Amino acid sequence: MASMIELIRRKRDGEALSAEEVAWVIAEYTAEAVPDYQMAAMLMAIFHRGLDPAELAAWTEAMLHSGDVLDLSAIAAPKVDKHSTGGIGDKASIPLAPMVAACGIAVPMMSGRGLGHTGGTLDKLESIPGFRTALDPAEFADIVDRVGLVLAGQSETLVPADRRMYALRDATGTVPSIPLIASSIMSKKLAEDLDGLVLDVKVGSGAFMKDETTARRLADTMIGIGQAHDTPVTAVLSDMDQPLGREVGNANEIIESIAVLRGEGPPDLVELVYALGAEMLALGGVTQDRAEAHTRLETAVTSGAALDVFASVIEAQGGDPSVVESDSALPTAPHRTAVTAAESGFVIRCDALDIGLAAVSLGAGRERKEDSIDPGVGITVLKKLGDGVEKSERLAVVAYRDDGRLEAARRRLDTAWQVGPEPVILPPLVLDTVA
Amino acid sequence: MASMIELIRRKRDGEALSAEEVAWVIAEYTAEAVPDYQMAAMLMAIFHRGLDPAELAAWTEAMLHSGDVLDLSAIAAPKVDKHSTGGIGDKASIPLAPMVAACGIAVPMMSGRGLGHTGGTLDKLESIPGFRTALDPAEFADIVDRVGLVLAGQSETLVPADRRMYALRDATGTVPSIPLIASSIMSKKLAEDLDGLVLDVKVGSGAFMKDETTARRLADTMIGIGQAHDTPVTAVLSDMDQPLGREVGNANEIIESIAVLRGEGPPDLVELVYALGAEMLALGGVTQDRAEAHTRLETAVTSGAALDVFASVIEAQGGDPSVVESDSALPTAPHRTAVTAAESGFVIRCDALDIGLAAVSLGAGRERKEDSIDPGVGITVLKKLGDGVEKSERLAVVAYRDDGRLEAARRRLDTAWQVGPEPVILPPLVLDTVA
Repeated sequence: MASMIELIRRKRDGEALSAEEVAWVIAEYTAEAVPDYQMAAMLMAIFHRGLDPAELAAWTEAMLHSGDVLDLSAIAAPKVDKHSTGGIGDKASIPLAPMVAACGIAVPMMSGRGLGHTGGTLDKLESIPGFRTALDPAEFADIVDRVGLVLAGQSETLVPADRRMYALRDATGTVPSIPLIASSIMSKKLAEDLDGLVLDVKVGSGAFMKDETTARRLADTMIGIGQAHDTPVTAVLSDMDQPLGREVGNANEIIESIAVLRGEGPPDLVELVYALGAEMLALGGVTQDRAEAHTRLETAVTSGAALDVFASVIEAQGGDPSVVESDSALPTAPHRTAVTAAESGFVIRCDALDIGLAAVSLGAGRERKEDSIDPGVGITVLKKLGDGVEKSERLAVVAYRDDGRLEAARRRLDTAWQVGPEPVILPPLVLDTVA
Repeated sequence: MASMIELIRRKRDGEALSAEEVAWVIAEYTAEAVPDYQMAAMLMAIFHRGLDPAELAAWTEAMLHSGDVLDLSAIAAPKVDKHSTGGIGDKASIPLAPMVAACGIAVPMMSGRGLGHTGGTLDKLESIPGFRTALDPAEFADIVDRVGLVLAGQSETLVPADRRMYALRDATGTVPSIPLIASSIMSKKLAEDLDGLVLDVKVGSGAFMKDETTARRLADTMIGIGQAHDTPVTAVLSDMDQPLGREVGNANEIIESIAVLRGEGPPDLVELVYALGAEMLALGGVTQDRAEAHTRLETAVTSGAALDVFASVIEAQGGDPSVVESDSALPTAPHRTAVTAAESGFVIRCDALDIGLAAVSLGAGRERKEDSIDPGVGITVLKKLGDGVEKSERLAVVAYRDDGRLEAARRRLDTAWQVGPEPVILPPLVLDTVA
């Protein structure tokens, strides 16, 4: 085996590394035999030179085997998960998982926390009193077996190489690299022992991928990794120029998720949940017909089955299942204030990034990993792209705890909306579905 | 000031850093406030993106001020140094410095050790019994003042940032970057408080720069740094496809250097020494006329003045000055063997890299920094490019100590020479002189 220096040099000069060389790099790094400074140079070389499909498959496979891999073979139902690249107001996973589980799919979902302007599913779930997201592998497997789904955090023993490498990437400016993003996501998802995976790749101001071309490259890259690992992957490209749904925060996003399960969700969120759900049912072999899938998902909602599944998983994970009946147990911020329109017309801008950063300022998200979050604060978006608005009419309601934080949030919210004389043509929410 | 992560990101994306930002990076790295892994990422980003002239001037200036800077203002004579980018058999500095000093230029020369296939001036000088190359700044200044030259190693307190950064570059595949090479060399030379600097930029198989285009870019880059620092720099581009002179080793290169000072050196070495010397006399204001410079240098040799200066500096640095009269005090290897021609014809290849690596195998150089060297071993090159040779005639004589090491050296020497039926057209030794 060549030395790490030699492998860095070859990648630096654009050569491809063999599968054995890639496996060696990841194994030695995980064992701390390769120091951070050499890995930092390798990561920056990969940033500039990329990884070809064979290297990427080897890289992901090596990451995946840096720790434990779940064994869910005892579960008879097809196992399908969904992963979002992150956005503002993106609570789709929370109603989606129970709806799909109610249709006979096992959903062993591992989610992340919010960082920067994007929210995190775990933070939202933990606003439910008592809800535990840190589960050991046995408990994880048991809940998905009994309830049909589980909503947990990443296990510490799954893909430890990614944890160490992500921290290094964060400190060395090597996060926004398509192969590194794709292998980080896919190594964790493939460690879940899945039969299929649906990716929600967000595009727009509130997404990590700002343009459709880059988002499509990321989607294609992750689909390619799935193929190399014999795991079917479908990617849905969806718009993230404005927040998804009307609620941005934590407890308020749980309330909106429950509304979807009651058949009362906002149209864009509902549209996306059904689109993702149909792909999950297809990968799980329930039905390839998207119209039939839609009907099945709708029945899971109208029958109350999906809401019952959600109540069951909350209970199984130690949470208070009364939240599905009433939001009185959920935390709430003490104060409310409105953001109003300066003029009459139509909303021509409702910027996801500004609103996401305002939510972080309020305390709904984290600027740094070690920050704690405030589950009760948030923003309710009343006017979205294309909506007509009168001067002084409310664009949003802000739920806040602290005047100083409100001040910081207001500075972001001042630029979030723009009102013009003509209505805009709305872009489609689902831009494409690729597999 | 932006954070290190932000600066890495900007350089990664090809943006230029301000002089203040560059100074901050170097100062924080020297103070160990910026960790190696972040500097490694920055260096790899620079490898791919380069540094523009303003960034490079700032980078060099910041390196230069990471430690002490010599103050040689008490010396009235013009101070001119020469630096070679390194080659095989390149002992030019050793006769050059006394010749130029004998013409009235002060030569405060700081040299390096051999690493890899190239030899080092310090290693060669230390084959003279007693010769000390580690001098403190006061002794360094005193010797150059009294004798007109000094031949020492890099002071530990000069450009400490370079020492740390070079080790990191070596471990992270970021050595062969023109701006990083140029700033490393120039920061150390500019810290010598010079009035002018002559660079010998080697091109060819035995050089770090394998082609003339790259060597020219390095030369231009270093000249640009000199201009930004108000220090005139002249670069001589010279051939390093075959060894310079006939001796490759340490003690044997001292003997060949003394031959030059006696007017008995091999023609290629003599040609280069005179070419470099003329440029040093021009920068030092002795004469702009290259023919007159040549005459002055020749007089320094024929009068014995240059040899006297060399004896004086040896004595001043603790060495045995009798070596200028007789080589009996110099170390020598116990065994000799020949490399012979397999056929008759003309030498069409006499490869500097192969011969350099063979010398390292014998023990004349270092594979790693911590290796010790054997001053008595070496190779005497009897046939060079264009020379006619008879079958079984000697191409070289190898002076060795150890049979195992000889074996390893022979494997390299087997491919070093090639004999063909027609004489080759010899390339010029001095390819160009740029300022």
